[in-house]
Amino acid sequence: MAQDPDHRPVEPTETATARAGPAVVLVEPQLGENIGMVARAMANFGLIDLRLVNPRDGWPSEKARAAASSADHVIDAVRLYDSVETAVADVMYLLATTARPRDSYKPVRGPETAAREMRARSAAGQKVGMLFGRERYGLSNAEVGLADEIVTFPVDPAFASLNIAQAVLLMSYSWRAAGAEDATVPRFAAPEAPPAEKADLYRLLDHLETSLSRTGYFHPPEKRDAMVQNLRTMLTKAGFTEPEVRTLRGVLRAFDYEMGERGRSGRESTG
Amino acid sequence: MAQDPDHRPVEPTETATARAGPAVVLVEPQLGENIGMVARAMANFGLIDLRLVNPRDGWPSEKARAAASSADHVIDAVRLYDSVETAVADVMYLLATTARPRDSYKPVRGPETAAREMRARSAAGQKVGMLFGRERYGLSNAEVGLADEIVTFPVDPAFASLNIAQAVLLMSYSWRAAGAEDATVPRFAAPEAPPAEKADLYRLLDHLETSLSRTGYFHPPEKRDAMVQNLRTMLTKAGFTEPEVRTLRGVLRAFDYEMGERGRSGRESTG
Repeated sequence: MAQDPDHRPVEPTETATARAGPAVVLVEPQLGENIGMVARAMANFGLIDLRLVNPRDGWPSEKARAAASSADHVIDAVRLYDSVETAVADVMYLLATTARPRDSYKPVRGPETAAREMRARSAAGQKVGMLFGRERYGLSNAEVGLADEIVTFPVDPAFASLNIAQAVLLMSYSWRAAGAEDATVPRFAAPEAPPAEKADLYRLLDHLETSLSRTGYFHPPEKRDAMVQNLRTMLTKAGFTEPEVRTLRGVLRAFDYEMGERGRSGRESTG
Repeated sequence: MAQDPDHRPVEPTETATARAGPAVVLVEPQLGENIGMVARAMANFGLIDLRLVNPRDGWPSEKARAAASSADHVIDAVRLYDSVETAVADVMYLLATTARPRDSYKPVRGPETAAREMRARSAAGQKVGMLFGRERYGLSNAEVGLADEIVTFPVDPAFASLNIAQAVLLMSYSWRAAGAEDATVPRFAAPEAPPAEKADLYRLLDHLETSLSRTGYFHPPEKRDAMVQNLRTMLTKAGFTEPEVRTLRGVLRAFDYEMGERGRSGRESTG
């Protein structure tokens, strides 16, 4: 457990390989110390791709570096984002970690199963990622809605108190353990076409919302958020490929056009 | 191995059940905070039997209690020992956790395998336990020698820096996950809503085709069949549930309505 204070430089190829591993996305983390502990947990199991969405106390953080216990290569490679959507733009299979299962139609998995699924998809060239919520209240329903599947930990219901560094540790360990199991027969058979990148999917969801706003669909107004969320969840779950997303964009453009959107095509590229 | 089902009377209390779980033995832990984090890690996964061998700063420890994050039932039940031998006196199967495999003739296992072994022995009435070493240098060779088997974690050799709370977390999680595997009922039953009946789905597909026919989408005409087929295939593959199909019908009705309103004035001129 002793750590060489002079951290050796990471080889470029090694970095590229690690980059191919899961992205760990922390949503609005509050304490630099927790970010550091997350980096340390990741480094133990060979992960390097740490992304922060609006860390409360800004970035860089000396507290994070101190708590990372020489996982400087993870701290130095941190990337900052101002929304979850942009943070996962290149991700093709996204997990949301939650303290306990929520009402949702998304599949809910344990860490081991989720890790095997990530391994199989990663081996098929798909970028995978995991969302971890805020210290105080985790992920919002809208954020969970962005993910393909949900991971929960088999904690004692009478004492469920995992912090984000512990949750990241368990997922990082599970990822590595799943790789060590000489990947026998993965459950996941790579489909002919991989799922669209999240950025493409989110553009479709934004487009649908914009188009529907032209109609009387979002009524009454106080239900709008829930309706949007419902649509986003079901269309995320559908797992559309990039060509399919493109087709659905075309469908929406056809409705836009017919509804008189011809002169306002700029709207489509928003978001 | 002789096994006596009446080895000791089992009390019908949760504590007794938890006591039958693995003992976590910390050898000369230095920081109260680490002891507290260990208690918290254990509590998350239903463990309660924490034993300390000569904690450097004495016991009780307010720092430990504070770091335990309300795992008071673990802190309150801590037992103190002045040697590893007395701490594990009642244990029948003892694991030593080490940062990496050592020269030893003992079997070396990963957390999952070790946890399954502990489960099997525990189910057979054997008290099981795990040794965790000092923050600075782990367990001595003599202490490792007391154990039946060795557990190591599949850490990245280039960055092996697990602290004792992290090691305890991984073992506690593995213990619990191994127990859940035993259950015949799957741990995480996805709240699976069944897919819609095909008749509902086909009505949605017909509706989409009808609505799109009002726009310029199906162009040129000779491609219409292929385009329809493409849409049907992707929307079938999505596996929508009945409520989701109903939602999508509502989306189409909203577009229909808006196209009807505007179409009366604009359709002829847009051709």
